[in-house]
Amino acid sequence: MQSSRKNRFSGVGGTGPLDVRFMRIALREARKGLGRTSPNPAVGAVIVRDGKIVATGYHRKAGLPHAEIEALSKVGGRAPGDTLYVTLEPCNHQGRTPPCTAAILRSGIRRVVVGAMDPNPNVVGGGCDYLVANGLDVTTGVLEEDCRRLNEDFNAFVTTGRPFVVLKSAMTLDGWTATATGSSRWVTGEASRAFVHRLRDRVDAVMVGVGTVLSDDPQLTTRLERNKGKDPLRIVLDAHLKTPPESRILNQDSDAETWLAASEALRGQVPAALEKKGVVVHHFPSVDGLIDLPALLDWLGSKMVTSILVEGGSRVAGSLIRQRLVNKFYLFKAPKLLAGDDGIPMVAGPGFQDMAACLVLRDIDVQRFGDDIMVAGYPDYR
Amino acid sequence: MQSSRKNRFSGVGGTGPLDVRFMRIALREARKGLGRTSPNPAVGAVIVRDGKIVATGYHRKAGLPHAEIEALSKVGGRAPGDTLYVTLEPCNHQGRTPPCTAAILRSGIRRVVVGAMDPNPNVVGGGCDYLVANGLDVTTGVLEEDCRRLNEDFNAFVTTGRPFVVLKSAMTLDGWTATATGSSRWVTGEASRAFVHRLRDRVDAVMVGVGTVLSDDPQLTTRLERNKGKDPLRIVLDAHLKTPPESRILNQDSDAETWLAASEALRGQVPAALEKKGVVVHHFPSVDGLIDLPALLDWLGSKMVTSILVEGGSRVAGSLIRQRLVNKFYLFKAPKLLAGDDGIPMVAGPGFQDMAACLVLRDIDVQRFGDDIMVAGYPDYR
Repeated sequence: MQSSRKNRFSGVGGTGPLDVRFMRIALREARKGLGRTSPNPAVGAVIVRDGKIVATGYHRKAGLPHAEIEALSKVGGRAPGDTLYVTLEPCNHQGRTPPCTAAILRSGIRRVVVGAMDPNPNVVGGGCDYLVANGLDVTTGVLEEDCRRLNEDFNAFVTTGRPFVVLKSAMTLDGWTATATGSSRWVTGEASRAFVHRLRDRVDAVMVGVGTVLSDDPQLTTRLERNKGKDPLRIVLDAHLKTPPESRILNQDSDAETWLAASEALRGQVPAALEKKGVVVHHFPSVDGLIDLPALLDWLGSKMVTSILVEGGSRVAGSLIRQRLVNKFYLFKAPKLLAGDDGIPMVAGPGFQDMAACLVLRDIDVQRFGDDIMVAGYPDYR
Repeated sequence: MQSSRKNRFSGVGGTGPLDVRFMRIALREARKGLGRTSPNPAVGAVIVRDGKIVATGYHRKAGLPHAEIEALSKVGGRAPGDTLYVTLEPCNHQGRTPPCTAAILRSGIRRVVVGAMDPNPNVVGGGCDYLVANGLDVTTGVLEEDCRRLNEDFNAFVTTGRPFVVLKSAMTLDGWTATATGSSRWVTGEASRAFVHRLRDRVDAVMVGVGTVLSDDPQLTTRLERNKGKDPLRIVLDAHLKTPPESRILNQDSDAETWLAASEALRGQVPAALEKKGVVVHHFPSVDGLIDLPALLDWLGSKMVTSILVEGGSRVAGSLIRQRLVNKFYLFKAPKLLAGDDGIPMVAGPGFQDMAACLVLRDIDVQRFGDDIMVAGYPDYR
């Protein structure tokens, strides 16, 4: 599909090393908006005149101009004969802002180089089609994989209607997230924890089970240097409303709300102590006493929650994985051994019985954070 | 200690980039002998005349000439005014071969550049002292860390009298070596398994618990391409002599022996079926029904077993780690999740209770073998 489009649009000149170079700069622009554009994707744009960059732009926030318009505004909206590099296919429809394709035509831009196509199955190719029909030279698929991956959360959201679910876990080399006594502070080092704060800054919401609230009393805020972080919405899976009113998650200074996902059976029965805290409680069907996760994710998607970072615990991880609901894993391995069999594992419940049937992670990325090893990958649910 | 020696010997000229370059070549020579020289260390030598290499050599096997002599033999034993690079301090005593220092003096070599000092606490510096006393220019400590690490097994053996114990484990990202049903074939991929065969080729012995023999029936032979591997001695921790006479470890074509380490209580009571196989059974004190591991290691050291690769199972790993007997870990993580809490962990028995007290691995080395991640490191027993 993508490659036939690529052939279809690859116009005069095709792609070359210069296209890749300028698209890389557009990608760098796009990244500046990551975590700020939801429910829109992060997009970057570069305008090139006679081989030189004359303007760059990125989408800063939903409701603010798209990347192409940002860049065009820096040249007064006029760029006759220029080439526009944009990481995502320009939009062709009226949303909160007018269609970018119209502004591109008006500017006199002659050639448009596109990274990834609009992943929305109803739109894909529409923007490019429109530009080609109006006589522009359109090249697609430059650094396509990078451009697509940049918005992997948005892409999943727009095609499934559910948030992109990222599961993070930190464990010892022998696989334990905590000792037999529940001691888990700190499994990983400072550099890994700082990266988790960057992940929190990127997602719309973080989610934990109530067990994690009871055992760790986490804040789930984004603590980056120079207070640059955005706190994500906090969601607690709390079928039976056991979150203590005094827990930190309900008693801190944060721009973000905390939502408790409780069982339908408790509708109208929120404990007075929680009500007094002004907690937001949402009710969902439950299955075997646990929140129905697909129903929860559908509902969160309808609320424009495009991405969730799941931070614990082992029962939540088990439910999500067994229902094939995790889209990406970030697994941190600390260079230490619990050296026993009595710790708390990453996942609770029955595992795969055949080693050959275990859940394989694809497109593995390995990074070092201090002495910790971070393994990221995508589950291959077969 | 090392650095004072370094100052003491650093003679005319000192060290420079050329010294490092030639020592690197000597190291490459030394590596050719790895796994073949036990109970001697692997050593490489290079002779340089007017800035050019005129001879190289390495120690091939105990009883054969040392690296310096190998190199000198290639220039007819005469190298007047030349510089000798050698990864380990030349020996100064009569062993199975005459002292290398004497041959160096006779050759007319003017300068000797040494990587690591002889780790034997009774010898360290002796060879260099002798050369300096005879008017040679001696420089030490060039690529010292690399030269020392090359023989980390020998160094431990010569200072403790016990074999260097390497523990290898292969597990899923969430820390399981097998599923609840015992399925462990194959946790890791082909490239990781090929590396384990290279490890077997390097050590004097491999060791497993009888549980691994019963569950996996392994061969524990070295299967390298072109049949180049050397099978290590196989040791089974089998206090109660439960190794089945029909197990593969006792019924295969291999140059290496299989030893069963049985409890002292079974002396004179080796089952007839095992006796008929001609199995070598050694008896050791036992503690709580398990072989006394320090006693076993002391005895193995006395038999000139300088290194052991421990390949399973979780009880053996637990006993060794809790007694602080593991010198190095090779942990292979397959990019998959068992996604449950019912698998077989790397280590059996009680683990550390406080996360901050867990056994830390130092000098971590991370390598990829296909999609597997290998983490090697040294335990920091505090």
